[in-house]
Amino acid sequence: MFIRLDAILLTVIAMTTVSYAEEVQPLPSWNDGATKAAIIEFVEQVTSPGDSFVPVAERIATFDNDGCLWSEQPIYFQLQFAIDRVKQLASQHPEWKTEQPFKAVLEGDLETLAQAGMEGLAKLIMASHAGMTTEEFADTVKDWLKMARHPRFQRPYSELVYQPMLELLDYLRANGFKTYIVSGGGIEMIRVFAEEAYGIPPEQVIGSSIQTKFELREGQPVIVRLPEIDFIDDKEGKPVAINKFIGRRPIAAFGNSDGDLQMLQWTAAGKGPRLMMLVHHTDADREWAYDRDSHVGRLAKALVEARERKWLVVDMKKDWKIVFTPQ
Amino acid sequence: MFIRLDAILLTVIAMTTVSYAEEVQPLPSWNDGATKAAIIEFVEQVTSPGDSFVPVAERIATFDNDGCLWSEQPIYFQLQFAIDRVKQLASQHPEWKTEQPFKAVLEGDLETLAQAGMEGLAKLIMASHAGMTTEEFADTVKDWLKMARHPRFQRPYSELVYQPMLELLDYLRANGFKTYIVSGGGIEMIRVFAEEAYGIPPEQVIGSSIQTKFELREGQPVIVRLPEIDFIDDKEGKPVAINKFIGRRPIAAFGNSDGDLQMLQWTAAGKGPRLMMLVHHTDADREWAYDRDSHVGRLAKALVEARERKWLVVDMKKDWKIVFTPQ
Repeated sequence: MFIRLDAILLTVIAMTTVSYAEEVQPLPSWNDGATKAAIIEFVEQVTSPGDSFVPVAERIATFDNDGCLWSEQPIYFQLQFAIDRVKQLASQHPEWKTEQPFKAVLEGDLETLAQAGMEGLAKLIMASHAGMTTEEFADTVKDWLKMARHPRFQRPYSELVYQPMLELLDYLRANGFKTYIVSGGGIEMIRVFAEEAYGIPPEQVIGSSIQTKFELREGQPVIVRLPEIDFIDDKEGKPVAINKFIGRRPIAAFGNSDGDLQMLQWTAAGKGPRLMMLVHHTDADREWAYDRDSHVGRLAKALVEARERKWLVVDMKKDWKIVFTPQ
Repeated sequence: MFIRLDAILLTVIAMTTVSYAEEVQPLPSWNDGATKAAIIEFVEQVTSPGDSFVPVAERIATFDNDGCLWSEQPIYFQLQFAIDRVKQLASQHPEWKTEQPFKAVLEGDLETLAQAGMEGLAKLIMASHAGMTTEEFADTVKDWLKMARHPRFQRPYSELVYQPMLELLDYLRANGFKTYIVSGGGIEMIRVFAEEAYGIPPEQVIGSSIQTKFELREGQPVIVRLPEIDFIDDKEGKPVAINKFIGRRPIAAFGNSDGDLQMLQWTAAGKGPRLMMLVHHTDADREWAYDRDSHVGRLAKALVEARERKWLVVDMKKDWKIVFTPQ
């Protein structure tokens, strides 16, 4: 009886799977061309029997967030969150009037802010978010995501995610990949929206962090956020964090800036088939066009290395049918 | 056509599941009694429709390793690994002759070593393993696990895992739980054997760590282990690490010593059904009997709190039919 049921089950699954594969074309928002073909070729290679087959457990794919899964212009979205938060809290912090990068925030001096880079951003986010519990912080982020609107598109920031990248995440997961975010942004902020926006659960989000402390408050355990940087998950920090959090080397990595170069190098250095990809922002009409001269998401060194090593470079304008999911 | 196939599929799955549940009794190495019944009741509660139902994504269970999943006597197994390693490397480190805890290792002074506690252990492990790449380190651990034998049982250390706990891990996973190790021991050591021994992949192992650094060696990217402690994943460190690595609060937590108390407190403080459990070592014949007076895996405060709060306390002697998988 059991054997018969199992046999039927397997047959039905096999039939359903074949029918599904025949029907559904992956990556519908990607234009046909070399980039899309290379992605599909890689996935078919690692999932088909043969020398290039990779067991499901080892199908790890890591994605940068800012500029790779969602936009990062005119300033990192988290920076906008920090700005709004710093303004809210400014009356309690008179010292911010003279201290950078807070001074720049309060004066609306975005250029100085942008020049502070990922580390400045982290400092700002961390400092403006300490002294509360992790749960209180998550609520603050949720509230902001509900209220805030992007200045150009007048949409909630969490809607400015790239539809082609969402399809890529889905396609990889449908083929047994575990998809991770590995971002220079704050880990606890991204976790608030990553599950809904990307289908990526909190335990697959890696990012920069501030130190936290466990304590009992009136007998109730809480985790409190301290005003000290714990880890900056950018550049050399990315492979270090991947090793710490995942403990396996990715076989596919996706980025868009020089901050992702070491993650791509680390991924490329493993044995067997690999996919390294950069999203090149080439579409000023539908999104933005920038690379080596941008203060946000600067792409210079990594683009040169990508060309040399024949990593995939997505030309946003040519490769993507749409950028954002229509409203 | 699709609808019909899906309908058949669902029916077959439903039939198979029911038949399977009727046939297979969970936790076969656990004696029938209050402990086993409480575990099963909890799992049925969170997986059955109703107020206590917990979605699969939130079914997080965290397990201590030493003394909870495998033995920890006469000394932590990782300490034995460190001892063997320190002896190997001693000729290159003359300063170890006078410096604790290295002095104790070289003199075979196990009592002094045991008194150094988790932090001393971490220091020893970290210091004796720095300066090599992560891959070289993993190879060292693999070699040791192959060669070394436990002094009492004369078996490889990775065979001294508790059969009833393996069944508990399986049972939880079969019910949609994601099982994590949250250990005071070194994260990169546990990852070497956790997948084979426990079915727990590297990305679900959390532990103490030393700092690491990404660098290019002759153009090849490597991650190098530095002789500096990064994080001690014990006591208050456990909920902090759970928050950092998982970003969700567990609904079930398993430990055996005072080092696990804060993890259990953090787990207990969440809303909805919870399972907190301590393994109490009460079986000197088949394993060991120890609690408040032990230098290894001391269990005093947590046992008092467990009794007060009616957390489960496993009586190894009474609750377990066997301790280790027979050879």
